[in-house]
Amino acid sequence: MFQNTAAQERVEIDLGARSYSILIGHGVLCDPASYAALPPDAGAGRKAHALIVTNTTVDPLYAQALHEALTPHFHAVQRVVLPDGEAYKDWPTLHLIFDALLARGCDRKTVLFALGGGVVGDMAGFAAACYMRGVPFVQVPTTLLAQVDSSVGGKTAINHPLGKNMIGAFYQPLRVVCDLGTLDTLAPREVSAGLAEIIKYGPIHDMAFFDWIEAHIDALMARDAAALMHAVRRSCEIKAWVVGCDERESGLRAILNFGHTFGHAIEAGLGYGRWLHGEAVGCGMLMAARLAQRMGGCDAAFVARLARLLERAGLPTVAPALGAQRYLELMRIDKKAEAGEIRFVLLEAPGRPVVRAAPDALVREVIAQSCGQ
Amino acid sequence: MFQNTAAQERVEIDLGARSYSILIGHGVLCDPASYAALPPDAGAGRKAHALIVTNTTVDPLYAQALHEALTPHFHAVQRVVLPDGEAYKDWPTLHLIFDALLARGCDRKTVLFALGGGVVGDMAGFAAACYMRGVPFVQVPTTLLAQVDSSVGGKTAINHPLGKNMIGAFYQPLRVVCDLGTLDTLAPREVSAGLAEIIKYGPIHDMAFFDWIEAHIDALMARDAAALMHAVRRSCEIKAWVVGCDERESGLRAILNFGHTFGHAIEAGLGYGRWLHGEAVGCGMLMAARLAQRMGGCDAAFVARLARLLERAGLPTVAPALGAQRYLELMRIDKKAEAGEIRFVLLEAPGRPVVRAAPDALVREVIAQSCGQ
Repeated sequence: MFQNTAAQERVEIDLGARSYSILIGHGVLCDPASYAALPPDAGAGRKAHALIVTNTTVDPLYAQALHEALTPHFHAVQRVVLPDGEAYKDWPTLHLIFDALLARGCDRKTVLFALGGGVVGDMAGFAAACYMRGVPFVQVPTTLLAQVDSSVGGKTAINHPLGKNMIGAFYQPLRVVCDLGTLDTLAPREVSAGLAEIIKYGPIHDMAFFDWIEAHIDALMARDAAALMHAVRRSCEIKAWVVGCDERESGLRAILNFGHTFGHAIEAGLGYGRWLHGEAVGCGMLMAARLAQRMGGCDAAFVARLARLLERAGLPTVAPALGAQRYLELMRIDKKAEAGEIRFVLLEAPGRPVVRAAPDALVREVIAQSCGQ
Repeated sequence: MFQNTAAQERVEIDLGARSYSILIGHGVLCDPASYAALPPDAGAGRKAHALIVTNTTVDPLYAQALHEALTPHFHAVQRVVLPDGEAYKDWPTLHLIFDALLARGCDRKTVLFALGGGVVGDMAGFAAACYMRGVPFVQVPTTLLAQVDSSVGGKTAINHPLGKNMIGAFYQPLRVVCDLGTLDTLAPREVSAGLAEIIKYGPIHDMAFFDWIEAHIDALMARDAAALMHAVRRSCEIKAWVVGCDERESGLRAILNFGHTFGHAIEAGLGYGRWLHGEAVGCGMLMAARLAQRMGGCDAAFVARLARLLERAGLPTVAPALGAQRYLELMRIDKKAEAGEIRFVLLEAPGRPVVRAAPDALVREVIAQSCGQ
């Protein structure tokens, strides 16, 4: 699993003083060189503490390897293991990280390492943003979704019972270390969920990449190393460009939420964790494309093409029947909403995203169509 | 209480794109002009929502006046009333703010108004920092301590059972509105607590101001309007200068913690809320001055002068007998600690602060002396 191949790529995120690198390759997780030149000086020449934040699923797979890779760089490496799943992306679980930091006397120079998927990354990042008003952290994403989306760009958060990612911070990591070898241990459903976010980069920015995904979807599903390297690198490049333009989502960055308005409603409506985030986003993209089509944007041919690609990626394309009223309620508390008006990321055409409100009647039609009613 | 006198002063905090003004005067709280030119446009020309965060003590005194002053500027003004006291500066109480925001459909353009003392300001500020990853907020401090210290500079936080202000963010307000009229309703103990932070600015930066405080301590205790105006303005000026030099406490800003290392240990050791924060800081300054004296810094004459001024300000000068071991344990988790070593703000001389470690033996001597043992 941890073969050290020469193939290693690097994508830079340009955010001035908060710039950082994304390392992508096989074996980078267990290579001490991946963690060199982080700021581990705890003052007076002493090395800093490291705290690995992971979950019960990832801990037995990769925590020891990360621990060993960090050992040369840190005074001590400690670990906190959280329960696994979106249902635990809440305050009581976040507090376990604070408890671990304080119980172990971790000071402001302590570096947190988020080892796991999107939930671990969001929680460890938010804990780093808040502990003593901010300590450094590093993302070590072990799921495809985290590697291509959530570990990059500095969005951190926990959920509130009334809405996903409602409590959080923009807080950039010092580095992102994406080991493609970790994808070998993912359940097929997790691979599909990651592919949803990869597919997203096509309609919002790069339809040539969408063409490439269509041509390589079987290789990606089979976890072909070269295909995964290209998909992860290109996804990170696009995300890095968007985030570099608009770190705090005052404009452009909102396009990354294509599929997320419907998707978050699916996740919250079913209860967090029933559908994976990527599954909800995949179905949400199809719903957003259908809405765009009804509003005179992308055409029926593209909607069909998107649906076909999602199916080939093993993603659900029939939305859960929550009822249109419930969808609308849940979407009105989306973070993009303004003055009670839901704002969707739609497509004028494939590759040309826009953020728009939409008439409730059309939204209801799309929900009815997408729930198979 | 709310006479509109012409006397109104303004102190500017220079933090680039995050710069803001502190308005100081009688009657500024209920003057709609104090809240002009905040960014209340919620998109498409609509006015934003406002949420007043206050506590059960302040709500009946000032919330209605603030509500009326905000009404011309906002689409709707709502209110959340928290229990009063440092003991409630915790996550469950913070969550009441998130619940109120979500239940009322407050979007990213909502402006939070922190109406109250340091606890309300820290909690409303931290809620603003986290809600949807950041919404704007305004400080309307109604205690002397909040006006001269905690409302200015962007430090927000809640407490953890193991340490004060351990979970928080640097997050600047859009404006600070200090109505000196609100000081008329303070309990004498609250006035004394505020004076502790005012006195602090002398030894850390401006001994001429310390001389002035000594000369006017009786007028300040009597809440003389002109004396309070000068004390609040000069305190805000000094704090603005320090924060402008070092927003995120990578160096200079630590001097503002003079008295706080011992002080936080007193607060945590007794249980939050037993002593007011300013009371603990006052006693902590005396302990820090004694430690500095033992390390060859400020002399016995200054220590005696400081003790006398604290007494005249109605502040306790005998520390609670927690035991030296407990003090040391509590101070080792201070945010200034590095690699387990406690770092104190000490005085080379009055007006010349330094941040230094100190031998445990000397710290124990100071604790024994200060606890009256």
